[in-house]
Amino acid sequence: MSGPGEPRPGGAAGARPTVLVLDAAPGEPAPRLGALTGRARVLHAPYGTDTDALRAQLGEADVLLVWDFLSDAVRAAWPGPGPRPRWVHTASAGVDRLMFPELIDSDTVLTNARGVFDGPIAEYVAALVLAMAKDLPRTLALQASREWRHRESQRIAGTRACVVGSGPIGHAIAAQLAALGIVTALVGRRPRAGVHGPADLDRLLARADWVVCAAPLTEETRAMFDARRFGLMQPGARFVNVGRGPLVVEDDLVAALHQRWIAGAALDVFEHEPLKPDSALWTAPGLLVSPHMSGDTVGWRDELGRQFVELFGRWEDGRPLTNVVDKDRGYVPGN
Amino acid sequence: MSGPGEPRPGGAAGARPTVLVLDAAPGEPAPRLGALTGRARVLHAPYGTDTDALRAQLGEADVLLVWDFLSDAVRAAWPGPGPRPRWVHTASAGVDRLMFPELIDSDTVLTNARGVFDGPIAEYVAALVLAMAKDLPRTLALQASREWRHRESQRIAGTRACVVGSGPIGHAIAAQLAALGIVTALVGRRPRAGVHGPADLDRLLARADWVVCAAPLTEETRAMFDARRFGLMQPGARFVNVGRGPLVVEDDLVAALHQRWIAGAALDVFEHEPLKPDSALWTAPGLLVSPHMSGDTVGWRDELGRQFVELFGRWEDGRPLTNVVDKDRGYVPGN
Repeated sequence: MSGPGEPRPGGAAGARPTVLVLDAAPGEPAPRLGALTGRARVLHAPYGTDTDALRAQLGEADVLLVWDFLSDAVRAAWPGPGPRPRWVHTASAGVDRLMFPELIDSDTVLTNARGVFDGPIAEYVAALVLAMAKDLPRTLALQASREWRHRESQRIAGTRACVVGSGPIGHAIAAQLAALGIVTALVGRRPRAGVHGPADLDRLLARADWVVCAAPLTEETRAMFDARRFGLMQPGARFVNVGRGPLVVEDDLVAALHQRWIAGAALDVFEHEPLKPDSALWTAPGLLVSPHMSGDTVGWRDELGRQFVELFGRWEDGRPLTNVVDKDRGYVPGN
Repeated sequence: MSGPGEPRPGGAAGARPTVLVLDAAPGEPAPRLGALTGRARVLHAPYGTDTDALRAQLGEADVLLVWDFLSDAVRAAWPGPGPRPRWVHTASAGVDRLMFPELIDSDTVLTNARGVFDGPIAEYVAALVLAMAKDLPRTLALQASREWRHRESQRIAGTRACVVGSGPIGHAIAAQLAALGIVTALVGRRPRAGVHGPADLDRLLARADWVVCAAPLTEETRAMFDARRFGLMQPGARFVNVGRGPLVVEDDLVAALHQRWIAGAALDVFEHEPLKPDSALWTAPGLLVSPHMSGDTVGWRDELGRQFVELFGRWEDGRPLTNVVDKDRGYVPGN
């Protein structure tokens, strides 16, 4: 096993590389890595492997596949200066759980699942926006009590959305909402063609009917949706978070809903997941709670496995990896 | 007052024409006809006016505005061969309640609200399709019991829809679904560019993931969605009706859902409205019930009033009316 400073161009060196899979919880499907047969030695760190054992496994792995993308185990077990994976791939779009100094400062390459979730999450956001505009939650509640109560609903064509987060997911959401006739502005870390910079954010929030958060979680974005920003929004505005839970100050959102600062919200991600049964979020007025499922359409796990196998092919051939995270920024930079 | 056979080109004749408004139920907003001040004598037949009184009013009216578009009162009260309105406008897209022989065979012109509901209903159908694909009803039920239960949902891009009804509402639905990436076929009474004829219907139903009914109710379309047609559909298919209730054999739909012939359905219209509390439809598995609201976005009543005022302007000027119903077919023919 070569040392950390030495280039290790995958299978080209002769010996099969070791791929360590950080397994997901029991019951979750494992990645289908049959395509790596004969090309890699695939080892598994079962869900709940203790930190010392995981650290030992990491010291022997060339590649780490973080299949349990909700885990903080890698951070805890990351080896010191000795041998460690040269490439870490996480089966998620967000990489915040891997943004710890030892990995950031190392020459280990980090890649993510960029691309897999764009379309599914964009559809999910469209579903939430339309459900809120058409008052579907109340329709379902009235159906449950067999009540026929006609109401007027809202048109979405011509309304305004502000999508925060200009990665491929944010772009896909903006395109989907625009296809529904919603006038959509996209806000990212730096202004560029089709993307507003942070300086425009508050102004855009103040006139949006729909505020959609699809930003990566970084030190800059943490808690960005707080009482001040909910206070800027219109009383008829609705807020959707499909990014990461800590982008939102949850208590501030609950207060904003109770005080009718905004008309409604939908959260698919939370500061602590799974959301505990006693959380005030379950019953906040006008809040739709879903269990971190926005990107998970049928076959998503297989798609994530396929994506890793494809990246592995590049790695073993010595071709450049795609989906490489800029570890200083905390996401994959793009257009 | 001129006789029924004589042309009566509105205000051009001198005397102000009489517009009779068949009012909607108490609590429903009245049409805002201030623009007709000095141009017409506006009378009202209050909701529940008895048949004889209504017949007398009809005999004195030049124009009838059927504001209570759910009413069958016009059919019952329509005068015999004597004086009667020369123009009837209904504030609805469907004209089935006015398709009675005395009106069909007369030279009274019938117009409808073509155009007002297209966009709203298309959005509503998109909301239903996305809600079913993303399993939102179950998400809401789980939220009510504070349960975090991750599920996979369905992508809609690349799925197939069959939209039955090729009027402006059907066209708008098809365009909206296509904008969401759904491969959409439109079926109408006669085949033409972009529209399949009835001969293709069963074949298209058999391969659709989404079957959307937006057809007019005529003797040809009544009960068209019956056990045989539900039997043709795929087990994963979902059915949506935003046309008229009697297009569907409701008992057959309930049976199809119980037998899992199809995966789900959403009805916004019913054979008898309002749906009675003891209807089996409220609790049929996988069925979403809404109270005939698909086209009724905020401001819809005002929009209907504006549309009538605009048509009235044409009528008083002797210009040709738009939205004229082909009384033999039972809808406004179009492209």
